[in-house]
Formats: sequence, C-alpha cells, structure tokens
Amino acid sequence: MGKGRLEAFSDGVIAILITIMVLEMKAPHGAALADLRPVIPAFLSYVLSFAYLAIYWNNHHHMLHTVRHVSGGILWANLHLLFWLSLVPFVTAWMGENHFAAMPTAVYGVVLLAAAIAYWLLQQTIIARQGEASPLRSAVGGDWKGKLSPLLYVVAIAIAGASPSAAQAIYVVVALLWIVPDRRIERFYRRSDGGGPDAGGTAP
Amino acid sequence: MGKGRLEAFSDGVIAILITIMVLEMKAPHGAALADLRPVIPAFLSYVLSFAYLAIYWNNHHHMLHTVRHVSGGILWANLHLLFWLSLVPFVTAWMGENHFAAMPTAVYGVVLLAAAIAYWLLQQTIIARQGEASPLRSAVGGDWKGKLSPLLYVVAIAIAGASPSAAQAIYVVVALLWIVPDRRIERFYRRSDGGGPDAGGTAP
Amino acid sequence: MGKGRLEAFSDGVIAILITIMVLEMKAPHGAALADLRPVIPAFLSYVLSFAYLAIYWNNHHHMLHTVRHVSGGILWANLHLLFWLSLVPFVTAWMGENHFAAMPTAVYGVVLLAAAIAYWLLQQTIIARQGEASPLRSAVGGDWKGKLSPLLYVVAIAIAGASPSAAQAIYVVVALLWIVPDRRIERFYRRSDGGGPDAGGTAP
Amino acid sequence: MGKGRLEAFSDGVIAILITIMVLEMKAPHGAALADLRPVIPAFLSYVLSFAYLAIYWNNHHHMLHTVRHVSGGILWANLHLLFWLSLVPFVTAWMGENHFAAMPTAVYGVVLLAAAIAYWLLQQTIIARQGEASPLRSAVGGDWKGKLSPLLYVVAIAIAGASPSAAQAIYVVVALLWIVPDRRIERFYRRSDGGGPDAGGTAP
Repeated sequence: MGKGRLEAFSDGVIAILITIMVLEMKAPHGAALADLRPVIPAFLSYVLSFAYLAIYWNNHHHMLHTVRHVSGGILWANLHLLFWLSLVPFVTAWMGENHFAAMPTAVYGVVLLAAAIAYWLLQQTIIARQGEASPLRSAVGGDWKGKLSPLLYVVAIAIAGASPSAAQAIYVVVALLWIVPDRRIERFYRRSDGGGPDAGGTAP
Repeated sequence: MGKGRLEAFSDGVIAILITIMVLEMKAPHGAALADLRPVIPAFLSYVLSFAYLAIYWNNHHHMLHTVRHVSGGILWANLHLLFWLSLVPFVTAWMGENHFAAMPTAVYGVVLLAAAIAYWLLQQTIIARQGEASPLRSAVGGDWKGKLSPLLYVVAIAIAGASPSAAQAIYVVVALLWIVPDRRIERFYRRSDGGGPDAGGTAP
Repeated sequence: MGKGRLEAFSDGVIAILITIMVLEMKAPHGAALADLRPVIPAFLSYVLSFAYLAIYWNNHHHMLHTVRHVSGGILWANLHLLFWLSLVPFVTAWMGENHFAAMPTAVYGVVLLAAAIAYWLLQQTIIARQGEASPLRSAVGGDWKGKLSPLLYVVAIAIAGASPSAAQAIYVVVALLWIVPDRRIERFYRRSDGGGPDAGGTAP
Repeated sequence: MGKGRLEAFSDGVIAILITIMVLEMKAPHGAALADLRPVIPAFLSYVLSFAYLAIYWNNHHHMLHTVRHVSGGILWANLHLLFWLSLVPFVTAWMGENHFAAMPTAVYGVVLLAAAIAYWLLQQTIIARQGEASPLRSAVGGDWKGKLSPLLYVVAIAIAGASPSAAQAIYVVVALLWIVPDRRIERFYRRSDGGGPDAGGTAP
C-alpha cells in the first residue's frame, strides 16, 4: 500500500483546517479602521493557530518522507492525529472570541497537548513498523523538542488560571522553537544530503 | 483512463466533509468550562461521524488499490457514494443540535444505510468490470462485515423511536467493528504481502 | 509545463464547491420528521447542482485526458470555467431558499449557460493548441450534446417567468442526457480502448 | 525532499481560499431580480479577488516549475505567502460589505502589498538556494511587473482616503497587467520551448 493517498488526504485536511479558521474572523460592519479593533483577538489567535498547523504540516511532511509502506496501524494513528488537529479551529475561535480568557486558553493547550501525543504515537507506530534499522528513529534522535513541548504545554495549562498571558507566551515560545531552524540539524542535513536528521521532525 | 484523479477527487471531498463538520460546533460565547457543556452533544456526534468518514476513506483507499482502469460506471458509482457521504454533516448537525433525539437518530441511520448500499454498488461495479479473475472479489471474500453492517443499521433505525440510545449504541458498535483490525485478515495480508484480503474492505 | 497541477487545482475547486453547497442546508431546530419539510427545496436544488458539478468534473477529467502541454491560454480558459462553476452554490442557495421561484430559476439557468460557454471556450483553446491532428477534436466529433445543452438552457431561461417548473424540468433533462451513457460512444470507446470519443465529453 | 507536497498543499489552500469567498455572498431572501442588487458590491469584490488568487496560483505554478529541491527556508517562505493570501477572503468581505468604502479599500491594498512582498521573498529564497546558475533568476529577468505592482499598491493605499474608486481602478489595472499575456515573453517562451522567461512569473 503506497503512501501517496495518506499524504494527499492529510494535506487536504490540514489545508482546509488552516483556511476555514479565517471564516471565524467575521468582517466588521463598520468601515472605519477602529471597527477592526474587535477583530484583533480573533486575528492574533488565528496567527498562532496558523503557525501551529503549518509546523504540523511541515513536520508531517518530513516524517512521512522516511515511510515506504503504510500499515493499517499507521493509517489510524494518522487519522487520530488529524482528529485532534481538526479541533484547533474550534478552540481558536473560542479563545479569540473571549479575548484570551483563562479557561479557553487552558483548553487550547489541552488540544495542543493531545495533538502532540497523537503525533508521538504516529511516530512510534512508524518506528515500530520500520523495525531495527528504522530511518525515522535515527532521524528523530534525542528528540529534545518533541519531549520539551508537551512538558511546556502542561505548564501552560496549569498556570493559565493564574495568568493566561503567561500561558499564551509559552504557546508562542513553543511555536518559535519549531519555526527557528536548528543549526546542528541543518548541518547534518547538508552532510547527508537527503532525508537527514530533520526528516523525523517531531510534534510541536 | 487512470484512477489518479478519481482518488484525488474522492480524497478531496472526504477531507472537506470531515473538516466542515467542525464548523457546526459553534464556539460558545461564555469563557467558563461550563459554557462548553451545550457543545457536548455536537462534539459527540462529530466524533462518531469523523470515525465513519475515516472508515470510508480507509476502505475506499483499499478498494481502489485493486483497480487499474476506471470506467464510466465506476465514476458514477463513486459519485453516488460521495453524494450520500456528503449528507453526513447535515444529519450530524441535526442529531447533535437535538441532543440525539429519536427522529434525527433514525435519519442518521438512514444516511449510513444509503452510504453502505452505495459502497456495495461501487464494489459490485468494480468486480463486474474486473471480470472472472477479479482481485477485489477474492479480497472481499465472505464479507461478513459488509453484510452485517446494513442489517444493524436497519435494526437501529427500527428501534430509534423506542430507544434512541440503543440505536446510537449500535452505530458505535458498527464503527468499532470496522476500526478494530481483523486478526485473520492481518495474517492473510502479511502472507500475501500486497493487496491482500483486506484490500477490498467493504462499507461500514 | 505539465498538466498535473491544473488537474489537481480544478479537482480541488470542484470538490470544495460540491461540498460547501451542503452548508446551505441548515439543520432544522425541531427534532420531528416534519421539521425536515422546509429543507426539501434546498435539498432538491442541492441534488440538481451536485449532479451538474459531478458531470462537469467527469467531462473535465475526460477532456484533459487528451492534453499533454498546458499553455497560458489553457490555464486562463480553465480558470474562467472555474469562476462560473464557483457561482453554482450561490444560485443553488438562492433557488432553494425561494422554493424554485421564477427569477432564481432563470438566473440558475444563466449560470449554467455561462459555464457551458466557458467549457466550450476551454475546449476550443485546447483544440487550437493541439493543431491539425487534435485528438480532442476527433473525440468531440459532432458534439450534439454540447450544442443542444446551451440551446435548452436558453429555452429554460426564456420560459422560467411563465413556468418555473418547466424550466426546472429542462435542467433535469439536460443533466440526465449527460449522466445516461451514450451506447454508441461506449462501443467506440471499447473498440479504440483508450482516449476514445467520449474523451472529449463536452459541457452539459 | 521533493516539491510534490509543497505544490499540493499550496494548491489546496489557494483552491479553498478562492472557493470560500463565495460563501460571503449570501443568497438574498427575496426572489426578485432587484433583490440581487445589494449583492452586487460583494460580487464585484469577489471577481477582483478571484482574479488575484488565480494570478497567484498561476505564477506560483510557474515559479515552482524551476524548483527541484525544497529547503526548509523555501517551505516557510511559501507558508508565509499562503498566510497573507489567506487574509484575502476577509478583506474581500469587508470591502464588499461596506460598498468599497475608503478604509476597507486601503486595507485591501495593504494585504495585496504584503502578499506581493511575501511572493518576492519566496522568489529570492529560491534564487539563493539555486545558486549562480539559477534558472529562476534568468526567468524572472528585469521583472518590471514584479517591481511596478507593489509601487502601484502603495499609490492606491495612499489615495484610497481621497478617492476609493481611483484606488480600486489601480487594483483592476494591476490585475489586468498580469492576466494580459506579455507578447515578448510568449515569443521567448516558444523559442526556448520549456521553462521560459515566463516561468518565473512574479507577484501581482
């Protein structure tokens, strides 16, 4: 069984998710610049979620690069990941509409955490399927980002009640961690000139 | 005529269907955890429909694996299947909004039944086109799941008036039947190492 | 320049159009079967438009089968066709919401007519590009369906004011003309076993 | 790393953007031709944005034609472009709903300008990656359209307050500049018969 349709389906779902979030930003009725002000929270939460979905698409792209054959387990682990990502527009809208209040901010983190766990499960399913010489395992390596991110989400969820803005700062930091390229990886990547260590990119 | 565009189009439609159902879950206006409570029925019906559409995509993927040439009949049988699947978001929203009341629960089953029949028609069209040595026919085999599911839908529709929750339990059981892998099939699949018996996966 | 992305983009747009029309069928608030009654006009106009978009996808699929190289002219003629198809959800919603009143029925026909002209323009652009030995020209042949359909649309638009249901009957007849396979074409198609005469399928 | 998924993802996002803008044109409740009148501004702003997104898809298509390997930098530059394009439906709705008032017209230009800059950044990232013998650099050439367009957007933004219709006229002119084929380029394109100078098509 090839991986072409798995990639195409995942691309389709992520492309739609990233796009329908825009529909939550309702065009204001007034025509003055000030009328855009109420849209700002929705816009900011859109930017954050756009970044997260872009990171997931990016890493998913790399991860599947190491995959040749798709098993039933991989198919379902992938659908499980897409399920959690599909909740991102909902929590994005809730957080934006309530101006980054405490509870929506915490629930946003819960969805990010669940997606990170789902990504990790997909990664482990692929590694198990690839067996001993798994290219994905060596690509992922120590995977400090993949281990640090869920931890930071847990911290953010815990402190969202006391300080929503601290929790949001954590979400921004995690996103930046994944967007800013890792120099060592870049170097390794050029050396091996192919599905280098970055190939396994893990969940944000 | 190749099957590439048939797959791409079906993937696109199913990816969009699975995603726009999320738009039916409106973000609540309040920012408390309790404000999420009214969304729970919509969420549960979303999870159920996500599972069904994922199963259909999965099985569709397997079924087309055995197809080389696409005839006009196959194109239209496939569009017929997509039509019934396209009604899933509507019945999902109706069932969720009415908190799993009797009639929406029954109509939900009717759409599942119609989709199962459409899937079976597509399967028969492909088998007829493949002729005597149809790989799909041998892949489908006894097809007990494909025969049991429509029967269970009929039961669910019949009892939805008396007990909606019994009908919903049946929908959940059918979905699990299809998600939980069939051990014998897995074994067969590994032996033949290719488009094995699972390849024909039938309609849920 | 290959045709892969042209096909993928067109598939994407048509898949989305065919799917978002479902969003116009709002789930009713009541949970009784009778509550579905107001949705019936929207449902019927959805079925008609689903059929038309499916026919367009189908014929587009066949037409591009004969194309190797995509010129700038073909790209724009294709985008022009997609523009008119993109108006189908709007006129479908307007016609459904107004229970097939005269004016929405006529405007629905105008969009069908414009799409048919755009399809014909795309066809001519491809034939011109292919030059003397155009496979698409010989595939299209006499093209009686492609010539009859716009004529029927004009009749439907003209009589919609006097009898909307006569106009709608014409739309249904044209759709059936395209869905019901043409026996002679099927025969020819099998003989040549390839991009046969059906390959040029023209606009409904 | 191949470019297939980058193209597929970009196609998906642009196809969805171009299509969901239609959802902003709400079907009017009345069934008379006059009831369509309030929809006209939304329709006109839809046509303009359809043209812009079509141009971007077209040029993106050409630009990636010259790319073989996709680096992390190219991936992110592409996502950055998609981000700005994803705001087009929002500003289109705002401009249409306010009947082309001054401020929405100016903000529309700001989004077009940001998208043009993002396109230029993507182009430079690709050229840098391709090194000395960059086919994209020679394809882009003097790039007078790519340099003129942002300038015209700036003019339009500046004069939108004084005369919104003058600003809109500029948007239309820039779109036409990109749609009307450049004869010299066509000639060059035929001579080289391949990824000719048009291949680099720059941002509108």
